[in-house]
Amino acid sequence: MRSSRRSAVDPFIVMDVMEAARRLEVTGRRVIHMEVGQPGTGAPQASAKALARAMETAPLGYTVALGLPALRARIARMYRDWYDVDLDPERVVITPGSSGGFLLAFTALFDTGDRVGIGAPGYPSYRQILRALDLAPVDLPTAPENRYQPVPADFAHLDLAGLMVASPANPTGTMLDETAMRALIAASQAQGAAFISDEIYHGIEYEAKAVTALQITNDVYVINSFSKYFSMTGWRVGWMVVPEDHVRVVERIAQNMFICAPHASQIAALAAMEAEDELQGNLDVYRANRALMLQGLPEAGFTRIAPPDGAFYVYADVSDLTQDSRAFAAEILQEAGVAVTPGLDFDPLRGHRTLRFSYARSTADIVEGLSRLKEFMRRA
Amino acid sequence: MRSSRRSAVDPFIVMDVMEAARRLEVTGRRVIHMEVGQPGTGAPQASAKALARAMETAPLGYTVALGLPALRARIARMYRDWYDVDLDPERVVITPGSSGGFLLAFTALFDTGDRVGIGAPGYPSYRQILRALDLAPVDLPTAPENRYQPVPADFAHLDLAGLMVASPANPTGTMLDETAMRALIAASQAQGAAFISDEIYHGIEYEAKAVTALQITNDVYVINSFSKYFSMTGWRVGWMVVPEDHVRVVERIAQNMFICAPHASQIAALAAMEAEDELQGNLDVYRANRALMLQGLPEAGFTRIAPPDGAFYVYADVSDLTQDSRAFAAEILQEAGVAVTPGLDFDPLRGHRTLRFSYARSTADIVEGLSRLKEFMRRA
Repeated sequence: MRSSRRSAVDPFIVMDVMEAARRLEVTGRRVIHMEVGQPGTGAPQASAKALARAMETAPLGYTVALGLPALRARIARMYRDWYDVDLDPERVVITPGSSGGFLLAFTALFDTGDRVGIGAPGYPSYRQILRALDLAPVDLPTAPENRYQPVPADFAHLDLAGLMVASPANPTGTMLDETAMRALIAASQAQGAAFISDEIYHGIEYEAKAVTALQITNDVYVINSFSKYFSMTGWRVGWMVVPEDHVRVVERIAQNMFICAPHASQIAALAAMEAEDELQGNLDVYRANRALMLQGLPEAGFTRIAPPDGAFYVYADVSDLTQDSRAFAAEILQEAGVAVTPGLDFDPLRGHRTLRFSYARSTADIVEGLSRLKEFMRRA
Repeated sequence: MRSSRRSAVDPFIVMDVMEAARRLEVTGRRVIHMEVGQPGTGAPQASAKALARAMETAPLGYTVALGLPALRARIARMYRDWYDVDLDPERVVITPGSSGGFLLAFTALFDTGDRVGIGAPGYPSYRQILRALDLAPVDLPTAPENRYQPVPADFAHLDLAGLMVASPANPTGTMLDETAMRALIAASQAQGAAFISDEIYHGIEYEAKAVTALQITNDVYVINSFSKYFSMTGWRVGWMVVPEDHVRVVERIAQNMFICAPHASQIAALAAMEAEDELQGNLDVYRANRALMLQGLPEAGFTRIAPPDGAFYVYADVSDLTQDSRAFAAEILQEAGVAVTPGLDFDPLRGHRTLRFSYARSTADIVEGLSRLKEFMRRA
C-alpha cells in the first residue's frame, strides 16, 4: 500500500538497546537499566484511591476538550505556589501527555514548510513530530560552554517561525536561568518566531528552581506533563499554557484531534497534585542517585559531563573513548550488563560521541550500575 | 501571537447546543439529551475491577508503542469470533481512541495537498484533522437511495489519494453491505487510493452483522475503538489494523506522536472484552430505544429518516419543516426541552435541512423525549 513521505520517521536507537537488554535478560543476566526515560515509581497512592472512587460513582465519559475545570484551576494555582505567577485557569489546556501538547502547539502555530528551531542535543520526538506535520525542524547545535542550550546567536540569521526550548533539558538535564530564557524569548520575538517552552522536568531540580517562561511573558506556549515529577508516564496526561487569544484555536484543534485527554487520568492527576510527601520522597531518591552519579561516573572515567541541573539524566561526551557511541553502548551492555543510550537519538550529527545515563530507577540499581561501569572501564 | 492557516478549524455547532442546554438546566428545566454521541453507561464493571487490581501491583508506566501484547492478541481473536477472519496480532496497533487512529493513518498514508474522499454527511473530525495536517478533504455528497453512503461513481473522476468510509456511519447509522464495501475497495484501489474503514460502531447493529473491510482484503486500514460497543469513551483507547508492511511505519509515528495509548485504559479495555453479558445488556437498551424512535419519530412528523442499521443515531431530512436546522434545533430545545444536533456539523452543504437524533441514553429518556417532540410538533 502507498505510504507518505512525511511518515519516513527515524527509528529510536534506544529501542535497539532495550531489545538487546531484553534478550540478555531472557538468558538470565541481570541488566541495570540506565537507558530508561521514566520513573520506576507509579502514580501516587492518592491517585489510585481517587480513581477507584470515581469509577464507582460516574461513567467517566468524555470531558470537555480543554479538560476538567477543577484540574485546570489546580494547575493555575500551582503556578502561584511554585513561581509566584498569576495564571488564568482559562489559559490551561489539559492534553494527552506532553506529546499531545506538541501536536497541538505545532498545528496551532505553524504551516507547511515553516522552520522551527530545536536545540541539539534534544528530545528526538520534537524533530519527528515536526516532520510528520510537514514542518521543517532546524537543529541548533549547542555548545558545552552554553550548558548545551541554544543562545540567540545560534538562530539570529535563520528566519525561524518558531523556537522550541527545554529546561531542564533531555538528554542533558541542563537548565536556562532567567537571563538566558529572557534573551531567547526576546530574540525569538524579534524575528516573529513563536516561543515554545518544554517544562516537563520542572519539579525535578536540585540546585535552583527552574524558571518558567511564564515568569517572563504571557506570549509563549508552555508545555508540561504529569509524567515526570508526578510520576504518571503511562497515564498520558499533561497540560499546556497558551496565550489568551489562542485558547479557542487550540480548543477546536483538541476537540477534533483528541476529543479530550483520558478522563481517568485527569482524575488521577488532580489527586497527584496533593501527594506532595510521596512526590518529594521520589525526588529524594533522584537526589541521592544524582550525587552517586556525579561521584561515580568521573571515577569510572566519564569525566566530560553536562551540568545536571535537573531531570534524571547525565549526558557525557565520550569522544575521548569512542567515535561510535552505538557500538560503545552495545559493548557496555554486553560486557557490563548496563543499558545506556547512545547520543544519536538526541543529536544526529554529534551523538556518535555521547552517551545518556538515566538515574530514574532505585538507588540500589544506581550503586550496582556504577560499580559495573567502573569495572568495565578498568578492563577496557 | 502568530497562528497557522491550518489551525483554522471549524467549531462544532453541537457545542452551542450543549451550552444552550446547560444554560436551560441551570434555570431548573429538565433537558432530554438526544444530541450526545456517547453511551450513558460507563466501562464494564470488570474493567474497573481489573484496573483497581493493576494499580495495586504495577507502576503502569509506558507500554510499548503498539500496545500491550495481550490486548493486541485478544483483539485479533475477536476478528475470528465476530467475522471468521484470521488476523495476525502483529497487525493490530493500539491507539489513543479512534482519534489517534485517524492521526496515525492520515500521517502514514498522505502528503501535503493529497485529496482524501469522505462521505457527506460524515463525522466532522475527519475533515478537520485532514485540514490540520494540510491535506485536502473532498466531500462526497451521498444520496438517500445509496443509504447515504458513497458509491464508486461519486469519486471515479476525482483522483483521490485516499477514501475514508464508515459503516455503521455517524450521523446516519447506515451500513455498507459486503457488495457495496467490495465495490468501494475495488474502485479505490483502481485509482491508487488508500482505503480507510472506520468501524467504530461495529457491535452496535440491529438487523445484520456489520461487514469489516478485512473480510475483503488485507490491503486496508481499519480503525476501531473501545468507545462505543465497549462503552469506554473517556478512556481514549482504540485500535487500528494495518497492512503487514505498514506496521513499522505506524509504530515509529506512534512512538513519536503518542509514546503509547494510556496504560490504564489498555488494561480496562482487555477486561471489557470479557464482559459480554453487560455489553449485550447495553445493546438491549439501544435496541429498545431504536424501536421506540422508529415508531415515535414518524408519529411526531419526522418521516424522512435514513435506515438506522447500526450505531445509536437517526438522521432525519427535515427540509419539509425548515431550511435552517440550526434555528430549528434551537427552537426544539427552547420549546420542547429536547437537545438535538443540526446536520451542519456533518454536512456543511446540505446539513441546514437535517437533524441527528441520538438514542444512546436511557429508555425512560427516549420515551420522555419522543413525547415532548410529538407535543412540540403538534403545536408547531
